[in-house]
Amino acid sequence: MNKLALSQIQTPVSNELLEFSKEFKKYLKSDIRLVEFAIRFILSQKGKKIRPLLVLLAAKISGGVGDRSFRGASLVELLHTATLIHDDVVDKASKRRGLPSLNKIWGNKISVLVGDFLLSKGLMISVENDDFDFLKTITNTVKKMSEGELLQIYKAKKLDIDEETYFKIISYKTASLISTCCEIGARSTTDDLAKIEALRNYGEYIGIAFQIQDDILDFIGKTKIFGKVQGGDLKEKKITLPLIFALNNSSKEESKEIYRALKKGVKEDEIEKIISFVINNGGIDYSKGIAELYSQKAKDSLNIFEESDSKTALIKLIEFVVNREL
Amino acid sequence: MNKLALSQIQTPVSNELLEFSKEFKKYLKSDIRLVEFAIRFILSQKGKKIRPLLVLLAAKISGGVGDRSFRGASLVELLHTATLIHDDVVDKASKRRGLPSLNKIWGNKISVLVGDFLLSKGLMISVENDDFDFLKTITNTVKKMSEGELLQIYKAKKLDIDEETYFKIISYKTASLISTCCEIGARSTTDDLAKIEALRNYGEYIGIAFQIQDDILDFIGKTKIFGKVQGGDLKEKKITLPLIFALNNSSKEESKEIYRALKKGVKEDEIEKIISFVINNGGIDYSKGIAELYSQKAKDSLNIFEESDSKTALIKLIEFVVNREL
Repeated sequence: MNKLALSQIQTPVSNELLEFSKEFKKYLKSDIRLVEFAIRFILSQKGKKIRPLLVLLAAKISGGVGDRSFRGASLVELLHTATLIHDDVVDKASKRRGLPSLNKIWGNKISVLVGDFLLSKGLMISVENDDFDFLKTITNTVKKMSEGELLQIYKAKKLDIDEETYFKIISYKTASLISTCCEIGARSTTDDLAKIEALRNYGEYIGIAFQIQDDILDFIGKTKIFGKVQGGDLKEKKITLPLIFALNNSSKEESKEIYRALKKGVKEDEIEKIISFVINNGGIDYSKGIAELYSQKAKDSLNIFEESDSKTALIKLIEFVVNREL
Repeated sequence: MNKLALSQIQTPVSNELLEFSKEFKKYLKSDIRLVEFAIRFILSQKGKKIRPLLVLLAAKISGGVGDRSFRGASLVELLHTATLIHDDVVDKASKRRGLPSLNKIWGNKISVLVGDFLLSKGLMISVENDDFDFLKTITNTVKKMSEGELLQIYKAKKLDIDEETYFKIISYKTASLISTCCEIGARSTTDDLAKIEALRNYGEYIGIAFQIQDDILDFIGKTKIFGKVQGGDLKEKKITLPLIFALNNSSKEESKEIYRALKKGVKEDEIEKIISFVINNGGIDYSKGIAELYSQKAKDSLNIFEESDSKTALIKLIEFVVNREL
């Protein structure tokens, strides 16, 4: 993660991000001691807070950051944190953000309950402040995120996926929340549907570009440094864009062989071979092109806005997402 | 479970329960095939649907069952089902309602995601129909339920609990949802705050009586038939009302010995001994008395309503809850 680049993107809302952090802590109060302990632990795992950043930048470019913007930022960060905690339980992850995961320290039961607490807390902030427009978008997003993950698992089981399904999966499981962050930021400060729509689209496109880059990095990223395993998706039979393209652009014989390997479970010594197959058949180059295309679409979505520091930051964020190597 | 007694309680809203089942199935649609499979499986595990029953009876006694009542019933049943699925994952349960649990068949990941899907679906029904009063009560309930469970775990770890904390735990983890069912039923059909308050109280009291009876049955219930283990709470270091009373009403020496056993983990051959300790020191009789007291409070809460079939059913439900032996 390039910290310098990120801090440049944060500049137009740096004061607002500080205020957000204060607000966020206020929401994380409970009179149950165990909840307090867990929350203090979660706050010590400092995330990049990309989602609140998106809410605040989208608010700023749409009119200005206000109380509703801070509430929106808290809502998405609470939801995101709850999701990460539940994910770690399900994936039996032992680390999160360089520290032990909550489930590793407190066990599954407490982790699932703390996740539920954070999610309901996020929803309560919206309910209590009559931010019903936020609720409409966020509940739809939670539904889409679970459906996207389930579709991916189903397709992995069947080993049957095409580009269209791939885009549906990543739109649901990844882009929907990012898009919602931008939409909520805009809605927190304006009723102008053109602005809301523009920022929702920006979020959708940058979300798709982000996930494609993530899927590319699973093949060629220098992820080993951070303990992430290369080819992790292959082991889980997740067929992503680079592989889909390579399978469609190789000889029948070659692609049959890859399917056979996937079907019986990819072994450590087969991963290098499949990665070469993907590279040699243009899967990485093609995916980079498509990520670039969605970056351009994200950028074009901002055309209706005048030049400003926030607009520059949102554009930089696109480059940041697509050029990252981790 | 006494099926005859339950069917008598259902009589005043038997048509409405049928209509509810139809509505409920409609909500459980998804264009993701794996979600459809999981839902069909969940529908095959026929629960007692006590919570929708409460919503419908509360609506009927407050004015009449309408569209909003059905939506409220679906909301609580979706939330309840999601909670059960997540519970089964956390507890590694292999059975639910006499059939294999969802996690047993589909695995943890799919189960957690299906739970999230059901929860968000429930919230979406309310959001899309502008049932914001339902959302206010339900999000607060989800928060309380997680806090109640976490408080119980925390107190189990510390082996430190008094009656006051016990009542807070069971009010949060159990009574809050039952109370919310009754409140939502009333709100679905009336603005009369006296009626809403009366039914909310009825739910709170019957919920507390229900949980006390549950805790009594953990000591003396004939639960072995159904594969439930007697003394399960003891093994999890959950100190419930019968034991709290017995500890406070025995010799210092005796109670010290019990604490010692709990601290190092209760073994199979110690369970009988602790059960006898609880019985001999009046823990069961006292708890029965308190359950009776809350039953009476639940009944009294209904005083403001005129006699009707629904009122009779709600009163019968109290007896059903407190006299059950399973």
